Amino acid sequence: MVFWKKLFDKTNGVTTSKQAELEGDMLEVPSARTDKSRIFFSTDRNIDLYELEDLCDAVGWARRPLRKVKKALEHSFLVVSMWEVKGNRRRLIGFARATSDHAFNATIWDVVVNPSFQKKGLGKALMKYTIKKLRSSDISNITLFADPQVVEFYRQLGFMQDPEGIKGMFWYPD
Amino acid sequence: MVFWKKLFDKTNGVTTSKQAELEGDMLEVPSARTDKSRIFFSTDRNIDLYELEDLCDAVGWARRPLRKVKKALEHSFLVVSMWEVKGNRRRLIGFARATSDHAFNATIWDVVVNPSFQKKGLGKALMKYTIKKLRSSDISNITLFADPQVVEFYRQLGFMQDPEGIKGMFWYPD
Repeated sequence: MVFWKKLFDKTNGVTTSKQAELEGDMLEVPSARTDKSRIFFSTDRNIDLYELEDLCDAVGWARRPLRKVKKALEHSFLVVSMWEVKGNRRRLIGFARATSDHAFNATIWDVVVNPSFQKKGLGKALMKYTIKKLRSSDISNITLFADPQVVEFYRQLGFMQDPEGIKGMFWYPD
Repeated sequence: MVFWKKLFDKTNGVTTSKQAELEGDMLEVPSARTDKSRIFFSTDRNIDLYELEDLCDAVGWARRPLRKVKKALEHSFLVVSMWEVKGNRRRLIGFARATSDHAFNATIWDVVVNPSFQKKGLGKALMKYTIKKLRSSDISNITLFADPQVVEFYRQLGFMQDPEGIKGMFWYPD
C-alpha cells in the first residue's frame, strides 16, 4: 500500500489528486509486466466515475447514470479495479464488483477489461483476484450471471453452469 | 405500523418482548384471512434467529451457524418475513431476503414457506411483496437462483430463465 501511494505521490496531470490517494489492497501481475508497464489491482472503491465510464464505453456497454453507479459502488461488498502503470501514469483497464450478504453469498457484476488489454490473461487474473478476495472474507458461494460468449471463460475459472439444475432467473419491470 | 405494534403490545409468552417490538412495513394478505388467523408481512430484520432456524428446519435445509445467519440478515438489502397471527400470538411462516447494490441489481436468497402453509398462494404473495419492495427502491434487475423444482413457480411470477442465453454460474471452494 505504501508502495502504491509512493507510486502516485509524484503523479502528474494525468491522475487527479483524488486518484493519487487511491488505496486498498494492491497486487502486481508479474506475468503482465513489461519493460514499460506494470499491471496492478486495487480494492479501493474511490474510483473516478468518468474513467470507469470510459472503460465501460470501450466495451460498448449502455451508459448508466453516474449517480446510480456511485451508489452501486458504495454498496458493493467488493470493488476491484485493474490498472496499467507506465512511469508515473496509470490507466484503469479493468473492473469487477460483487454484492454480498457478507456471510454466505456473493454475486459478481460488471466484469470488464479494456479491449486493448484482452487476450493477455488479464481477465482471468482479475477474476482470480476477485475470487481470492471473496474467499478471504469466508464467502463460500460465489455466483454470477454470464453472457453466452463468456460462459466458457468462467467455466475455465472453475464456475459451474446450472449446478444440480439450479437456474439463473431474471425479473425485469414491464 | 402502529397497528402491528398494538397487536403485539399485549402479547403473551408465545412471543418474546424482543419480537413484540417487531416493526417495519406491514401488509396483511386479505385472501389468506380466516376467522381464526390472518397473514402479515414485515420488513423488520430483527427476527428471532431460533424461530428462523425452526422455519428452515421445517423444509429440511441444512443448519447454518447462527452467527453467520445474523451477519447475513444485517447485510441483506431487504429482509421479508411472513407471519400467521392468531389472536395475540404470531408465528413465523415464511421468509425471503435479498442482497443488492442499492442501485441496479438485487438477488433474492433463502425463500422459504412453512410446509403447513404451502399450496395456499402464500409463497406467491411473499414473492410479490418482495418484488414490490425492491421495485419501490428503484431496483430494476431482480435475480435469483432457482432449484429445478421451483423454476416453474418463479416463471409464473414473471421470472425468466436464462434470458438471452445468460447463464447462472457458481463457484464453490474445492
